[in-house]
Amino acid sequence: MSLLVTGSIGIDTIETPAGRRDSVAGGSAIYFAYAASFFTPVRLVGVLGDDAPAGLFDVFGDRDVDTSGLEVRKGSKTFRWHGSYVKDLNEAQSIQTDLNVLAEAGPKIPANFTDSKYVFLANSHPVLQQQLLASIKTPKLVVADTMNLWISVERAELLKLLGKIDGLVLNDGEARLLTEEKNLIKAAKQVLSYGPKFVVIKKGEHGSLLVTKDGQAFVLPAFPAENVVDPTGAGDSFAGGMMGYLATQGHVTPATVKRALAYGTCVASFTIADFSLGGLRSTSREKIDARWNDFKQAMSF
Amino acid sequence: MSLLVTGSIGIDTIETPAGRRDSVAGGSAIYFAYAASFFTPVRLVGVLGDDAPAGLFDVFGDRDVDTSGLEVRKGSKTFRWHGSYVKDLNEAQSIQTDLNVLAEAGPKIPANFTDSKYVFLANSHPVLQQQLLASIKTPKLVVADTMNLWISVERAELLKLLGKIDGLVLNDGEARLLTEEKNLIKAAKQVLSYGPKFVVIKKGEHGSLLVTKDGQAFVLPAFPAENVVDPTGAGDSFAGGMMGYLATQGHVTPATVKRALAYGTCVASFTIADFSLGGLRSTSREKIDARWNDFKQAMSF
Repeated sequence: MSLLVTGSIGIDTIETPAGRRDSVAGGSAIYFAYAASFFTPVRLVGVLGDDAPAGLFDVFGDRDVDTSGLEVRKGSKTFRWHGSYVKDLNEAQSIQTDLNVLAEAGPKIPANFTDSKYVFLANSHPVLQQQLLASIKTPKLVVADTMNLWISVERAELLKLLGKIDGLVLNDGEARLLTEEKNLIKAAKQVLSYGPKFVVIKKGEHGSLLVTKDGQAFVLPAFPAENVVDPTGAGDSFAGGMMGYLATQGHVTPATVKRALAYGTCVASFTIADFSLGGLRSTSREKIDARWNDFKQAMSF
Repeated sequence: MSLLVTGSIGIDTIETPAGRRDSVAGGSAIYFAYAASFFTPVRLVGVLGDDAPAGLFDVFGDRDVDTSGLEVRKGSKTFRWHGSYVKDLNEAQSIQTDLNVLAEAGPKIPANFTDSKYVFLANSHPVLQQQLLASIKTPKLVVADTMNLWISVERAELLKLLGKIDGLVLNDGEARLLTEEKNLIKAAKQVLSYGPKFVVIKKGEHGSLLVTKDGQAFVLPAFPAENVVDPTGAGDSFAGGMMGYLATQGHVTPATVKRALAYGTCVASFTIADFSLGGLRSTSREKIDARWNDFKQAMSF
């Protein structure tokens, strides 16, 4: 089924213990779209400047990603991020962030995308997330991500957004900031009281936690990875794998969300094995399925 | 089958966000023995001073724990620890540690305990661990714990111990210190190169990781606990549940070790729900089994 993602398109400079890459393709929507495309056709909506080197975002090859919702804005500059994981592979240190075009008006949802059933609103200003969502006619499942900045400075708008979506994906620090609850189960339940039917808390190398409105909790470790090259995009790939799988199921039950989380976990484990999109570009649905089965096996007792 | 534990007997003063308890029963061997006794008869070996208030260590009630290996040493003082989890529930801050009798000669294994088949050497000086182990005639499975102090100051003796045991249980920080490897899978493999057939790395609220000599990795989240009152003894209870279950199986395969880890996880989740031994004293094998089944369910996909 049709899966639409809106989010950032970025030019990243990344430093990790494994090395450094300058001006590579990045951004939440790019990682999400690539990850989700292993499962279902993806519609990508985002905006970049006219400064991006030719071909930088021609990353999708023969993947089924419709990029007609990518706006190249004349005279604007693409979002740029320079981050380092040299000190801590589990947490990026931002060296420089240039919002550029992300500080301007947001992208528009093309008319032929407004019938999308599955929608992922990757991290952006919660007012923009609401505007984008309002363009979708009859969504079946809407999931959003957010970040510390919006929790701190746009809390009221974020809470309004939470009243309009089915699921929220956020990391542990963000969940604690949003709810002022240290315990993550309590934090998740607090998030659910704001509206969503389920919340997924990402804990980086420690895995993820799902809590649903009917009180079910599902805990999942990360895939045990021996070689982490570049964690950039792991969370967006996780969300992409999760939503991509859900879009193939046609119904959202606790059981499908659990399987979806495990798919997200496996897809993210490929992302972190190389810089930028390299890890995703060198995997396949077959490899992802094989790893999913290994993961299921490694966790079963 | 007979399970012997040697380790500390302590008088703890504990501060947590939930409150404070002064001079309560503690020590690695006490927690381990209680936890293991839900599965199998336990033989407890340790030493305390003659200063302990009457009845403080009469904690086992009708549990099948043979305390005839507990030496009350005349003129000596019991090990005391004052710790705080007020800042971080996942990591104790030691306010005061008085080794007292633990700095003297170790306990002796009673003659009628030397036929024990399952042996857990809780954290103590690696020379003492080796001495105690040497008293056991034909052990079937020997597992040890250790701590930062011995890794730093008695590395050579610790490595000798590792050549004599089947399994090592340690926490993530200790594994990194011992191997100088940040990645825990790599750290686990390094530990295995020192001798043990399997290693279990405890990650506190983030669960645990098992790696076996034949290359199998098993990752397990912690039981999703909403109310953590006092984390003291969680790691020892985890080990107790794990070893207690293994002692009932008669064989040690990757499959039994995985189930054992899940039992350890569940037993520890009861420990942290109250101060001192309170959590363990108010549970039962039936409750543990029910939680084990819930846990299996919460993790399956």
